[in-house]
Amino acid sequence: MPHIPINFAQKFSLFSEQWQPKVIAELNDYQFKLSKLQGDFVWHNHPHTDEAFLVIDGTLRIDFRDGAVTLNPGEMFVVPKGVEHKPFAEREVELLIIEPRGVRNTGESNASPLTAPNNVWI
Amino acid sequence: MPHIPINFAQKFSLFSEQWQPKVIAELNDYQFKLSKLQGDFVWHNHPHTDEAFLVIDGTLRIDFRDGAVTLNPGEMFVVPKGVEHKPFAEREVELLIIEPRGVRNTGESNASPLTAPNNVWI
Repeated sequence: MPHIPINFAQKFSLFSEQWQPKVIAELNDYQFKLSKLQGDFVWHNHPHTDEAFLVIDGTLRIDFRDGAVTLNPGEMFVVPKGVEHKPFAEREVELLIIEPRGVRNTGESNASPLTAPNNVWI
Repeated sequence: MPHIPINFAQKFSLFSEQWQPKVIAELNDYQFKLSKLQGDFVWHNHPHTDEAFLVIDGTLRIDFRDGAVTLNPGEMFVVPKGVEHKPFAEREVELLIIEPRGVRNTGESNASPLTAPNNVWI
């Protein structure tokens, strides 16, 4: 087993594209993914799983049908399964997302121009 | 659903005891736990699950039988299931641990004076 720390800043330096999550680690059948976001995502939900968002750099707002939560570095939020949400960032935000392997970023029912390839490691 | 960010620094300000993980969130049947560590833990392993460590503040060394990994803020490591490990911190370190609900901190087979109560929320 290699004894190498996973460094978020180093991993973020390896890509610039937005809305394209990159897998950096697995925990059983869960994945840790880094993503850069800016602007408005699409409304979607994940009917079979919760989804965790941790902000590494910048500010993320997650809109819900009945409100919103704003996250800064050192903050996290878990979106419960089935709850419609829409990430938004005025300026680019760097995120860590934790969810089971195979979850589609735009939700299971919404193919969209923002649907990203799955299981891309960095 | 309350729209309240989980702020690591605020949560860490609520407790001072070391080696006593506190649950701050759940993602399906996984838990996010904050812990303060200092000194040497016991050698142990988790035969049924991987375990993720993210350093929030300070420096953590995780010793293995065949080496070690040192983690600083912004770094993480996943200890594979069944791999013996021993956390160590010269000065107090603040950690985020992610693992399935119900995992015992000292391993499934090792009751020890450092075995912590499980499922304590903060």
